[in-house]
Amino acid sequence: MYPKNAWYVACMPEEIDDKPLGRTVCGEALVLYRGPEGKAAALENFCPHRGAPLSLGAVIEGKLVCGYHGLEMGCDGKTVAMPGQRVRGFPVIRTYPTIERYGFVWVWPGDPAQADAAKLHHLAWAESPDWTYGGGLFHVNCDYRLMIDNLMDLTHETYVHATTIGQREIDETPTKTVTEGDTVITSRHMENVMAPSFWRMALRGNHLADDVPVDRWQICRFTPPSHVLIEVGVAHAGNGGYNADAKFKASSIVVDFITPETESSIWYFWGMARNFNPHDKPLTASIREGQHKIFSEDLEMLESQQRNLAAQPGRQLLKLNIDSGGVQSRRVLERIIAQEQAAAPAALSA
Amino acid sequence: MYPKNAWYVACMPEEIDDKPLGRTVCGEALVLYRGPEGKAAALENFCPHRGAPLSLGAVIEGKLVCGYHGLEMGCDGKTVAMPGQRVRGFPVIRTYPTIERYGFVWVWPGDPAQADAAKLHHLAWAESPDWTYGGGLFHVNCDYRLMIDNLMDLTHETYVHATTIGQREIDETPTKTVTEGDTVITSRHMENVMAPSFWRMALRGNHLADDVPVDRWQICRFTPPSHVLIEVGVAHAGNGGYNADAKFKASSIVVDFITPETESSIWYFWGMARNFNPHDKPLTASIREGQHKIFSEDLEMLESQQRNLAAQPGRQLLKLNIDSGGVQSRRVLERIIAQEQAAAPAALSA
Amino acid sequence: MYPKNAWYVACMPEEIDDKPLGRTVCGEALVLYRGPEGKAAALENFCPHRGAPLSLGAVIEGKLVCGYHGLEMGCDGKTVAMPGQRVRGFPVIRTYPTIERYGFVWVWPGDPAQADAAKLHHLAWAESPDWTYGGGLFHVNCDYRLMIDNLMDLTHETYVHATTIGQREIDETPTKTVTEGDTVITSRHMENVMAPSFWRMALRGNHLADDVPVDRWQICRFTPPSHVLIEVGVAHAGNGGYNADAKFKASSIVVDFITPETESSIWYFWGMARNFNPHDKPLTASIREGQHKIFSEDLEMLESQQRNLAAQPGRQLLKLNIDSGGVQSRRVLERIIAQEQAAAPAALSA
Repeated sequence: MYPKNAWYVACMPEEIDDKPLGRTVCGEALVLYRGPEGKAAALENFCPHRGAPLSLGAVIEGKLVCGYHGLEMGCDGKTVAMPGQRVRGFPVIRTYPTIERYGFVWVWPGDPAQADAAKLHHLAWAESPDWTYGGGLFHVNCDYRLMIDNLMDLTHETYVHATTIGQREIDETPTKTVTEGDTVITSRHMENVMAPSFWRMALRGNHLADDVPVDRWQICRFTPPSHVLIEVGVAHAGNGGYNADAKFKASSIVVDFITPETESSIWYFWGMARNFNPHDKPLTASIREGQHKIFSEDLEMLESQQRNLAAQPGRQLLKLNIDSGGVQSRRVLERIIAQEQAAAPAALSA
Repeated sequence: MYPKNAWYVACMPEEIDDKPLGRTVCGEALVLYRGPEGKAAALENFCPHRGAPLSLGAVIEGKLVCGYHGLEMGCDGKTVAMPGQRVRGFPVIRTYPTIERYGFVWVWPGDPAQADAAKLHHLAWAESPDWTYGGGLFHVNCDYRLMIDNLMDLTHETYVHATTIGQREIDETPTKTVTEGDTVITSRHMENVMAPSFWRMALRGNHLADDVPVDRWQICRFTPPSHVLIEVGVAHAGNGGYNADAKFKASSIVVDFITPETESSIWYFWGMARNFNPHDKPLTASIREGQHKIFSEDLEMLESQQRNLAAQPGRQLLKLNIDSGGVQSRRVLERIIAQEQAAAPAALSA
Repeated sequence: MYPKNAWYVACMPEEIDDKPLGRTVCGEALVLYRGPEGKAAALENFCPHRGAPLSLGAVIEGKLVCGYHGLEMGCDGKTVAMPGQRVRGFPVIRTYPTIERYGFVWVWPGDPAQADAAKLHHLAWAESPDWTYGGGLFHVNCDYRLMIDNLMDLTHETYVHATTIGQREIDETPTKTVTEGDTVITSRHMENVMAPSFWRMALRGNHLADDVPVDRWQICRFTPPSHVLIEVGVAHAGNGGYNADAKFKASSIVVDFITPETESSIWYFWGMARNFNPHDKPLTASIREGQHKIFSEDLEMLESQQRNLAAQPGRQLLKLNIDSGGVQSRRVLERIIAQEQAAAPAALSA
């Protein structure tokens, strides 16, 4: 169960620069490509002629040309032309509203009439020259909510990421979780601790001593449908922590866009946005590499957890205080999904 | 849905020269082997003793010896002997009529009482010393009818095989399709075109200039249950095209025997028979290699199309004029399958 | 269908020396590990917090620490501690009686109240300094009863293991099968035959001539739930065969512990116990290597047989005299399973 009337990240822009891309989002098999003037477009991945996947075709002058018999598809789902055929009566295929912004291609897998660019999550850092971003994509065989749980409870860092970002003090420092409208915020502030290896690297990257005590923070923000943005950072201890002057700290935003593929698999777009040394490309690469290693460590755990839960579907799990972030996020999702389902019959009869 | 009372290619002769072969044809799990005097035989692949697949055994003096406990099976499905056992009461396993002819082993997966060697498709080229044949075998995960569609509509060459046999003029030249009894014929004649690379190679192989305009033809013949033989060729332009004298042309027959394995997978026996330079073995090898490359290009498309259609079973496809070959072939098949089903209860009660 | 109230081999001791092990036994997903004082323990592989598999965690001071959020599990299924949490109300997870003995870790997947160490199969050789053991583990996709059949009818050696332990005289020598209580014994004695290659190697390993006639024996003993121990050996002919003085023979016990994983897959612990040259480690290694090769030859046959039988579930198989061992063993199993099922409702209502 996932909201369908929402903007999800469908792909990174470069994935469709050279050729169409087949990708399933929220159970919808899509072909993503660049139509006229390079504008990102999404259609159902099904040629109306004989059902071939349009993603095996090519984009020629902004038209998606089926790789089987040359049907030329427009980004409105209407066939433009086909060699030797009149195409006026051809059935129209489904289109999906698409926006390219903030360095991602977003798609609306639900009711197109409700798609509204204004509903797109605003990402200030993605439009600021003072910030830079590096990230990647994983396919993970788990329910998207397991990944939300994972990111809204960072105590797992101590165990899953022991050698990089984990440290004992995470466990020892309680979190505070609040829901503000549709947003859920879980925050943790550790004071006067030694930075773990990933953060020592970031301190050095920001020309700061890495062998002195720091204040460390983690502020996880869930917003529907499945975005988790986490403000993380360290500041030399005693300078105000999260509110310290920039010259004392290395901070960034962990970016997690979780796109359900099916009920039990996701496309996980992960990365880090930072505003220190934004032009230092080797630093971007080294942070990206570090994150790749760290986030890889979650995959086996999440996929095993998924299999365990699927084998015992009725089994109750604990909801501890550390789970509040995930629990409250699921509550927001349940409300949104229920609203969507209540509205659906009306939408269908309209 | 496929006809079962028909001759299908089960294997190439060399596949059973050294040892038995397990292969499923039309849902029937067979063991194919050479029985007494090397005669091809087909049985169900199930030892009546403990259910071991007989294909894991060996052929010893024309008897198929089970590789588990040494039961010796005769090609009539009756156990001949077993160490230390009286075998008279052993249950008889199913046998399948088999013919080795035209360089293939053919099997009749349906009612043995209706099997008749006279119903085997006649292949004149396979018995003529003026012709030679080279080919191969692919396993493809698609409904056999998708492969028939593919072969009865060669406009896909322009897109799927753009660098070898495809050319724009295929799209631009209309086809004519007729059904004659159970045979469906789709033909296309292109005049005064430049030959694409595969045909330039064939022209050179036939000691003809490859840089002059040619007339090119494609005459696809479907015959039940699932054979598609395609006369293809090029002749130096203006010499009568299909009817030109042999000295002006390179022509051949594309051979496609499509054997359903299951409802959604096939054994695809493909090849080319030609009557120019039939003794030129390097040419045979080079044509075979070219065909292997070309036919490989269809596989991803057909398997993706199969997945797309399986995901939306009720969805209607278009039936354009270019699809007439496939559409008319399916009509012949539907009629044959309906006849078979109507006759089945009688056969069972008999 | 398998007995659940029984001791099965769960793993070899070294499999849990360094870290926990996830393994499914009789449909129960277990985590096996060494608890306090290194004592083997088995729990359900499910963290009560969020359902993560405990086998991805670590053992720290005898406690099984979940690798996701650090929950510390005791070997009684009760949570000992968790960072920042009160754990008293945490649900208890299931524990499985476990014994480490005879060089194996044994588990009781059924009703713990009925687990009794006295019911463990006694293995005298495993406790004697005059004997040594070498073996291994295979995962096989077959019903555990197909492996019992395989081991209780060694005529298959002639066909499946033709080059190592098979010989024509196995087929020619009848067996005798008796059921004594729950034990089924199938025995075969061959007189004055030449030893096949595996046994020539064993004779040489025991400093005996390998080129003279021998008497050879095979005494297969099935005991529930699924153990097959086979006394095998050769003695220089005319010295009493099975009863010959040790100086004339090479003999050993083939050890087969078959642990159902699911209804159609097993963990197959195989090996050989011998009392000649027990301290000759290179000999142990060479026997182990030989057995590995031989037992590997069974796998394709058993997995193919499983697929064949699964495709035709209602089909009757033959029950010949050579099958008596398997047939009688299945009869014992059927009785035990029926008793278990009859008793189950009472156990549940208790």
